[in-house]
Order: sequence, then structure tokens, then C-alpha cells
Amino acid sequence: MRLTNLFAATAAFGALSMLAAPPALAQAAAQTPASVDVQNIFNTLLFLVGGFLVMWMAAGFTMLEAGLVRSKNVSMQCVKNIGLYSVAGIMYWLIGYNLMYSGVDGGFIGTPVPASFPDPGAATADPEANYAAASDWFFQMVFVATAASIVSGTLAERIKLWPFLIFTAVLTGIFYPITGAWQWGGGWLSEMGFSDFAGSTLVHSVGGWAALTGAIVLGARKGKYGPGGEVHVMPGSSIPLATLGTFILWLGWFGFNGGSQLAMGTVSDAADVARIFVNTNLAAAAGVVATIALTQIIYKKVDVTMALNGALAGLVSITAEPLAPSVPAALFIGAIGGTIVVFTVPLLDKLKIDDVVGAIPVHLLAGIWGTFIVPLTNNDASYVTQIVGIVAIGIFTLVASAVVWGILKAAMGIRVGDEEEALGLDKVEIGVEAYPEFGTGSQRI
Amino acid sequence: MRLTNLFAATAAFGALSMLAAPPALAQAAAQTPASVDVQNIFNTLLFLVGGFLVMWMAAGFTMLEAGLVRSKNVSMQCVKNIGLYSVAGIMYWLIGYNLMYSGVDGGFIGTPVPASFPDPGAATADPEANYAAASDWFFQMVFVATAASIVSGTLAERIKLWPFLIFTAVLTGIFYPITGAWQWGGGWLSEMGFSDFAGSTLVHSVGGWAALTGAIVLGARKGKYGPGGEVHVMPGSSIPLATLGTFILWLGWFGFNGGSQLAMGTVSDAADVARIFVNTNLAAAAGVVATIALTQIIYKKVDVTMALNGALAGLVSITAEPLAPSVPAALFIGAIGGTIVVFTVPLLDKLKIDDVVGAIPVHLLAGIWGTFIVPLTNNDASYVTQIVGIVAIGIFTLVASAVVWGILKAAMGIRVGDEEEALGLDKVEIGVEAYPEFGTGSQRI
Amino acid sequence: MRLTNLFAATAAFGALSMLAAPPALAQAAAQTPASVDVQNIFNTLLFLVGGFLVMWMAAGFTMLEAGLVRSKNVSMQCVKNIGLYSVAGIMYWLIGYNLMYSGVDGGFIGTPVPASFPDPGAATADPEANYAAASDWFFQMVFVATAASIVSGTLAERIKLWPFLIFTAVLTGIFYPITGAWQWGGGWLSEMGFSDFAGSTLVHSVGGWAALTGAIVLGARKGKYGPGGEVHVMPGSSIPLATLGTFILWLGWFGFNGGSQLAMGTVSDAADVARIFVNTNLAAAAGVVATIALTQIIYKKVDVTMALNGALAGLVSITAEPLAPSVPAALFIGAIGGTIVVFTVPLLDKLKIDDVVGAIPVHLLAGIWGTFIVPLTNNDASYVTQIVGIVAIGIFTLVASAVVWGILKAAMGIRVGDEEEALGLDKVEIGVEAYPEFGTGSQRI
Repeated sequence: MRLTNLFAATAAFGALSMLAAPPALAQAAAQTPASVDVQNIFNTLLFLVGGFLVMWMAAGFTMLEAGLVRSKNVSMQCVKNIGLYSVAGIMYWLIGYNLMYSGVDGGFIGTPVPASFPDPGAATADPEANYAAASDWFFQMVFVATAASIVSGTLAERIKLWPFLIFTAVLTGIFYPITGAWQWGGGWLSEMGFSDFAGSTLVHSVGGWAALTGAIVLGARKGKYGPGGEVHVMPGSSIPLATLGTFILWLGWFGFNGGSQLAMGTVSDAADVARIFVNTNLAAAAGVVATIALTQIIYKKVDVTMALNGALAGLVSITAEPLAPSVPAALFIGAIGGTIVVFTVPLLDKLKIDDVVGAIPVHLLAGIWGTFIVPLTNNDASYVTQIVGIVAIGIFTLVASAVVWGILKAAMGIRVGDEEEALGLDKVEIGVEAYPEFGTGSQRI
Repeated sequence: MRLTNLFAATAAFGALSMLAAPPALAQAAAQTPASVDVQNIFNTLLFLVGGFLVMWMAAGFTMLEAGLVRSKNVSMQCVKNIGLYSVAGIMYWLIGYNLMYSGVDGGFIGTPVPASFPDPGAATADPEANYAAASDWFFQMVFVATAASIVSGTLAERIKLWPFLIFTAVLTGIFYPITGAWQWGGGWLSEMGFSDFAGSTLVHSVGGWAALTGAIVLGARKGKYGPGGEVHVMPGSSIPLATLGTFILWLGWFGFNGGSQLAMGTVSDAADVARIFVNTNLAAAAGVVATIALTQIIYKKVDVTMALNGALAGLVSITAEPLAPSVPAALFIGAIGGTIVVFTVPLLDKLKIDDVVGAIPVHLLAGIWGTFIVPLTNNDASYVTQIVGIVAIGIFTLVASAVVWGILKAAMGIRVGDEEEALGLDKVEIGVEAYPEFGTGSQRI
Repeated sequence: MRLTNLFAATAAFGALSMLAAPPALAQAAAQTPASVDVQNIFNTLLFLVGGFLVMWMAAGFTMLEAGLVRSKNVSMQCVKNIGLYSVAGIMYWLIGYNLMYSGVDGGFIGTPVPASFPDPGAATADPEANYAAASDWFFQMVFVATAASIVSGTLAERIKLWPFLIFTAVLTGIFYPITGAWQWGGGWLSEMGFSDFAGSTLVHSVGGWAALTGAIVLGARKGKYGPGGEVHVMPGSSIPLATLGTFILWLGWFGFNGGSQLAMGTVSDAADVARIFVNTNLAAAAGVVATIALTQIIYKKVDVTMALNGALAGLVSITAEPLAPSVPAALFIGAIGGTIVVFTVPLLDKLKIDDVVGAIPVHLLAGIWGTFIVPLTNNDASYVTQIVGIVAIGIFTLVASAVVWGILKAAMGIRVGDEEEALGLDKVEIGVEAYPEFGTGSQRI
């Protein structure tokens, strides 16, 4: 309640009355609803279009990370990303999907068997689940790949390829599906009333917790933190590629959030998807404006990587509830997301947690924020339940990830040697330099 | 009439008879039209898919501009583009959309209040406007961002960030919506019979006029024009990124022009969208072929930046009327667009108007050409009315932009100092270099 | 039969029973099928969305090739790709489309007249071909551009621009449409029962054969093969751009294969499109995993370009039959595709066939594999007929391409001079360097 008032005050720049969503249009009752078959096709289409947009986010993460690491580690980042997307798909088919969705029934896990789909030419119009089974699998699979992508950025420039891919397999085949089962699979959290529309917590925070755990177990890059606590900036190799990655992610997010409506076979569902597009877009815009303004004020210069992460934090923030907010509320939620990035990136450095691309502020912290704030605009959610969900999923992912990172560290080592780190992972593990012809500039570290 | 004959002669390379569109297929009268609800969903879907494609053009402009500026100004160009897209969205929500569309009624402006959308879960099937309100807003918003993107490229490498963003706010919140109201909002120009299907004038020329005014007020980059009138080429930093940007824009243009059909809930509307795809694609192809051939003939080498701008000029040219032309007419319109680029890029240099990326030829001049030539293929348009529209919108945007640029220049300065320009905007205003590790090549200027 | 057993054995890692596709869901017989009009709109929409995704593959090839050639030839590669896409579109309109589809009737060619489309506003619901004519043209056109793109990569770094564009015109206007007519146009191969769902042979192998012929006629790059048979690696200039290109192609492939269902107006068709998405995605994933694992084992390092080509080979392999395979079969087909790349890239070097980007293994050899293996999962196909189709199309394209390459070589020369090759095509033929500011690194060749 206090928070609602605070928010209302913050938003009182002339748009106060709009916080309450506008009255619904009179429904045109005489309309003929689309037939079950037509609804099925529209729903399937939403999953396929939303799905290919989210698949495209794999390229977005790749470009973002390739742009934000130093040139000596760019090829490795490319391999990791195309590798993790591939491993995620196979693992989510092999056990993840049914572990998450099959027979959870208010409990904790489903049944870890491979996913299967109807024969070619079979009609699949089941009024209970009125879409093609394969389209749903595809849509869910690209989400799990997104969670794994988050880990990749944080741990860049010092983690070995193979332990990273093994962790990816466990995360996408087991951990993500388990916490996913709790909510989207119809498990205990969903029965409790937890609300996470498109995955601020289920996808982004899960990836963020796994990344945080990995960063702690792995340690910072050599030279990142000086003995006196000073932080050495290690500038990324290509700002335009990082910017491209951000735009790709922004585009993909229309599929991420819009597709999470899960249906567009009715006028009302289609209108909701449209509304989600608007809120998603404007939350990101507010994240950008907040970071541009704040970095100008604080640092007297606009920090381009903050602006990019501001867009992403706005997107993560609105993901838990992209439908219910009015536009001013969406702007508020996104702007706070961007603000979180500006203030927590330096904080992580103080804690000597080396997050190469800023994924922990963007995905974990903005994800917590977005999940927590759902009850501000969605009356079916409660702050207590939101906190329960955030904490439960956080603890599970933290502990489970720590165990796996620990095992990998003990069993095969997860970090390259110091000399190899200095040389760059591309020369050591990949053997193909990313930019063999471009001179070593003065800032090469 | 004379022009029609000229065109017919030009096109008489064996395809003359195809200029008249082919006879319509016999209509299958027994078909059942889609229900109002299904039409609504299709229309909403067209806006959403078209909209995300046009949103993606923001990335295209970013890449095009990042590739065509020198490396010392690339980070700035990235910030400007993600910033302008964000500002455009917020301003167009805050006042632009209703200023453009609400209650114009044959007049000059609408009502500048924030846009609002139906509640979640509300059906929005209004037979008068059979689509989701939020999907229309989204589609229109990405258009206004496109107009602002055009300005960004022309003024690159010397304009300060903040005056640019302030101008963007005014352009997208006020100027673009006003001239938009005249036509698409149902204002005086539309009542007069002006025809601009997807915005050769309303979007591209508006952006182009604002860019031209800015370029004049701002002045050329230091060293661009020598004392004896010689032009110094300042080559862009990355041709592949510029090429990527062009392909992104080309892809986005299917949404831009195809979505401007505004409906695909009937067989006829869907077929028109398909026809628009074909004409849009082939006009761009003709622009490419024209510029490749002409630069080979004139300069004995094929100029890659001309080829890219040729594609874009072909796209801008067909945007005023992508539906009515037969394929040969679309090829002709696009080829002339490309030809305009080849001949006017040097002309601007003679006038010492420094347009970094060639946006004025591509968006302003090809936009004028495309708008003017509509009556060749669309019998509902007249050359006189087209000229009235081109001139009225041109004068308004020129004068209004000049006033704002002048105020910004007087109030806060719009241009960085000479030393800062030499150092590059990335170091001075952004603090993050785009490519910190890549050596300074011999051609660095 | 033997092969089926072999495959079953290979796949017997626990998923054997899934090779037989799961039993079809009980069909909900009470559903109302979508009306003819609604089906028409869905079908048209599939062509348009699938088409713009495949159009986007033109950008993917451009980025892949721009990343895999040396920086001195990048601008040329950009011109070639935007040029070939443009030429392909115009030629396929001018004669290709009707040569391929109009009046083939079990024979060898159709009627080479320009394509035409219904008037604006005309309904086009013909129950025989229930989609907009222009949408079909658009979808088919982007396929022919794909075939031409394949040639571009193989012949990079030494072929002149103009003979390449002339060859593209012949390939896209005449050769591709002729072999296309044999199968998709309803010609003799289709009557014989040849099966190539989305074009492993008709698109990818055709491009591959044309590329192979060109590579032989053109010869290897200077210095690629030493006098003692040693192979000199000429590393590409930008691995992140090559990776971006691969992701673009992967994304576009959902349109390529999914759209080739040619209909989504029924629940069954929509479910098939969804199934195609899943198989397409997982075949690519398997290609990646296979190449990562194999290069680690063989070379002790993971080769990033192999991983990228592994994804593409997986995609090409599943293209001949993306619908019928169960998931394990799709994984198997894709993994073998990736394996083919790992083993045939060195083989081509032994034969001194200089394929700059690896297009021959990826498109030709994986295309043959994918086409050959169709009968494993599709009972309507036979191995004998598959071989007949592969060989017939191969011989035609080889001979026809060789004739045209030979004529071009004799008439105008197809290769730049040695000195020009050393300088780079960008300086010699384009006049615009791709990266004018980036220093010449130590590995510049």
C-alpha cells in the first residue's frame, strides 16, 4: 500500500489519472468468435512467431557479449553461445520439457521423459490445449536457451568451454525445468498465487542466480580488481555489436512477452498481445532514458553500455507483468529497472564480483524488481507471495548451481590458467582469432 | 500526361504492355468472408508483425550509421539511435498519437493528450476500426521513430547529444504528428486528395527536411570541404555494418509498406499486402542495379555505399504507392530513386551541405520523387495535389525545424568544439570508445 | 533397408522407440474447419512471413561471407550479395518464375514469360491454389536468391564482380528454374516420385554445384596451396560477423522449411509447420554439437568456423524432409550433416578446390545427404528415385554452369589479376575499403 502511494506520487507528473487503466470499451456482443480450429491456428502461429523472435535473442546475446568482451575472447563467446543454444534445445527435448510440464499437479517436478509430437498430418485441436504441441515446445525451448545465455555473459573471458557447456546441459535440462514446474508447470508456487507472466524470475533471475554463483566460484578476471580495491575497466571490443545485440534482444522481447499471452485466437487475446507490445516497448524506452539521464548527471558523460543495459533492464522489469500496467506504470517499472543498473553495476565491483557484461544487474536484480512489483498493477498478486516465489526460486537455483559449479571445479577445473587468460581464450581453446587482421590498439589489456 | 508518356517510353524495353496491371482474376463469389472477429485478429496481427519489422529498422539505421561514420564517433551514433527510438516512443505516447489522429476532422491538428488503450481482457472489435487500439499505436509509433532516425545520420560526427535528443522530442511529439494529421489523421490534405500510402513524404521527407535544416544550421564537419571547394572523402569505419543496416531496413520495409495496407482480414486485403511485398522488394532491387550500373559507368568502379543507398532510395520511392504499380512500373520508380542518389550526393557536396550518410538524397529527394509519381499508377491521385502536399509539408517542416534548431543553437549550442570534433564524440561526450583495441589505420582522419 | 538398420543402431542411445513417430492424437472430429477465405489468408500469411524470413537470409549470407573473407575483400562481398539478391529478384520475375511453374505438366520446362499478379483490390481465392499469387512469387523468389548466395561465398576473394552478376542472372533466371520445374513445377522428377520438401537439392545442391564448377574454372586463391601441397589458412576477418550470419540463416530457415509446408489454414497444416520448426531447430543443434565434439577430439581445439558450418549443414540436411522425421531422426540427420563438414573441408583442400567459406560441404554435400536419406523417414520416397534426382540435377547444373563459366572466362575473364588479388578486390574493383581505419594485423595475408 505504501509502495502504491509512493509510485502514484512518482508518476504524478501529470499522468496520475492514467495509472488506473482506462475503462474497457463496450464489448461488441454480437460478434462471432473465431471457430475452435481458427483459434488453434492463431494460437499456434503466436507460438511460432513469438518463438522465432525469442530464438533470435540467441543472436542478440551473442552480439552483446561479443561486443562487450575483449577481442581476444570473442571467438570463444561465439562458440559458447551457439553451443549453449544447441545444448539447451537438445536437453529440453530430452528431459526438460516434460520435467517442467508433464504431471506436476501442484507438486515440485514433472516426468523427465523426451517430448513427443503428433504425427505429420494429424489434427491437434484439443479444446483443452488449443494449439499445436510442437509449437508450444518450440516456444518454451527458446526460453530455456535465454536463461542459459545469461550465464554466458557474466562468466566470459576466463571460463573453459566444456564445463560451461556441461553446466548449460544441467541448467537447461534439470534446474530451469524444476523451478519452471513450480509455476508454469502448475506446481506449488502457482497454486499459492505467484505471478510471473513471462519470466522475470523464472527465466531471467534463474539465469542471473546461476551466473552469480558461477561468478563467485570462478573468481574475477586477472587484473580486474587491484590490490587496493581499485577497479580496472576492461573495455569491450565493439560497441556497435553490443548495440546490435541490444536491439536484437529488444525485438525478440516482443515475442518473449507477447507470446506469453499464450493465445491470440480471440479479439480479447489479440488486444492483450498488442497491449503487451506497447508496455514492453515503453518500459525499455524508459530504461534507456533513465540510464542516459542518470549517467549524464552522475558521470557528466552518457555511458553507452549503461544505456544498452538500461534498455534490457527495462525489458526484464516489465516481463513479470507486461499486460496489466497502464503506460505510466510501465514507464515507471522500466525506469526503475534502468536505475537499478546504474547503481548496482558499481556495487558488484565493490563486492569484487566480476560480471563481464552486467548480466546480474540486468537479469537478476531487475528481474527481482519486476517480479516484486507485480501487485502494484495486478490485483490478483500479493507482495508476500511474490517474495516467496523470488526467494524460493533464488535459493534453489543458488544451491543447485553452487553444487554443480563446485563439482565441475573439483572434477575438471572450470577456469583457464593465468597465462592462457592473458593470451586470450580464442588462441588457447578455439584456435581461431576473432579479428586476426586488426591491430592491437593502445588500450589492449 | 507528358510524364506518363515519357515513362511508357522508358519502360518500353519489352514490358510495355505490363504497365497496365493485369486483368483481375474472376472473383470467387461463393466464398464466406472471415467473421468480424477473425478480421480483427488478422488486422491486429498485421499491425504487430508489421510493427516489429519497422521497430527493427531502428537497428538498421543504427548499423548503417555506425558503419558510415568514422570509428571515433561510433559509440555516439549508437547512443543517439537507441536514445531517439526511446524518446520517440515516449513522446508519441504522451502527445503525438492523439495530436495526429484524434479529432482532426479535416483540419490541421488533433488533441495532444496521452494515448490510452482498453483494459486487459477487453474485446475491442469495433466494426469502424476493427483492430486492437494498442496494435495501431505500436505500428504508428515505429513510423515516427523512423523519421527521427533519418535526422541522426545526416548530422552525425559533430552534433551534441542533448540538443539532438531535444529536437527528436519535438519532432516526434509535435512536428511529425502535425503534418501526419493533415493526411493520415484525416486533415485538410487528405480531404484534398493527397496520396501517400506508407509515407514517402509523411515519414521520409519529413525526416529529410528536418535533417536538411539541421545540416545547414549546424554546418559541415571540419575538413570536409577545402578552401578551394574540394571535397574530402571521410570513409566510414565499417562497410559490413552499413550493409547489414541496409538489409535490416530492407527487411523492415516489408512491414513498413505491407503493414500500411492497415488490414489483412479479407482475401483481397491479404493479396494486396502480398502485392506490396513484391513491389517493395523489386523497387529496391532496381535501385541497387541502377546504382551499381551507374557508378560503374561514371566512376569505373562500383561504389558500395551508393549501392546500399540505391536500395534505400528504391524503397523510399515506392513507399508513397507500393500497391498500384505493376512490376515494371515499380522497377522504374525504384531505378529512378537509385539514379537520384547517384546524381544528388555530389550535388549536395557542391552546396557544401554535409550529409554524413546520404540521408537527404535517399529520404528527402527519393521521397519527393516517389510522392510526385503516384499519379502515374494511381488514378485517384493528381500531380497538382501531390505537389501541394510535398510543398506544404516541406515548408512546414523546414520552418518549424529551423526555428527549433535556431533556439537550440542559441540556448545551449548544438555543435561540439573543434578540438572535440577532432578527438571524436566518443571520447568527449560518451567516454566509451567503440573499438578500443583496433589500431588507427592509415586513413584515419 | 540396411541403412535403416544402421541408423536404428546409431540412434539406440535410449531413444530407439521414438524413431517411429508417436501415435497421432485422436482427431477432434467435431471441429469446424476454417472457411476457404480464412484459409487463404493464413496461407498467404505463411508465404509472407516465411518469405521475409528467407529474404533475411540474404543478410545472413552477407555477414557470413563478410566475416570469413579477409578484410581487403569485404566491401566486394557486400556488393556481390546485395547485387545478387537484386538480380535474382528481377530475373525471377522476368522469366524464372513462369519458366519454373507455368505449364510444365510432367515435362522439363515451363513458359519463360514475366510473372503477373492480380489487380489491387481483387480477391484471389481460387480453391485450387488458395493463396495470393504475389505471396507465392515472393516466397519462391527468395529461394532462388538463396541458391545464388551459395555461389558467392565459394568464389570470394578472386572473382570479378560483373561476370559473377551475369552468372547470377543466368542461374536465377534459367538454370535454377529449369531444375526447379522438374520437381516443384510438376515436371518429370516429381512424377517419378522424387522427394525434396524444401530444397536440399533444388536450392542448396544447385547452388553448391554451381559453386563447385565455378571454383574449378576459377582456380584457387594465390598462395592458398603451396607447391608441396601444403594448405595455407587464410583466416576470416571477423568471427562475430560470421556468427551473426549463421544465426540469421538459422532464423531464416524457419521460414525456409516452415513456409515450404505451403499452407497453414488447417489445424493439421499449422501443426505440421510447428513440427517442421522443431525438427529444423534440432537438426541444426545436432550439427553444432557434432562439429564441436569432433573438432575437439580431432584437433584438440573447438573450431568456431566448423561449429558455424555445422549448424548450417544440419539445416541443409533436414531441408529435404523436415516434417516426417521424429526428433531422434532429425538429430541424427543433422549430426551427420555436421560430421560431413568436419571431414570434407580438409578433403576439398586436398583436391585444391578453394571454397572460401565452406559452402560446398555445407550446401552441396549435406544437401546430397539430406536428399538421399529422405526414405529413412518418409515411406513415400525411395532411395533409387532420390539418387536419380540428385544425379540428374547435379549433372544438369554442373554442365550448364561449366558452359556459362567457360563462356564468361573466354569472353571477359572471370578472375582479377594477381596484383589486384594481392591488393584486394575492395581497392581494385570497389574503391571503398571495408575497414579503412583498422590497422593491418600481423596475420594479414
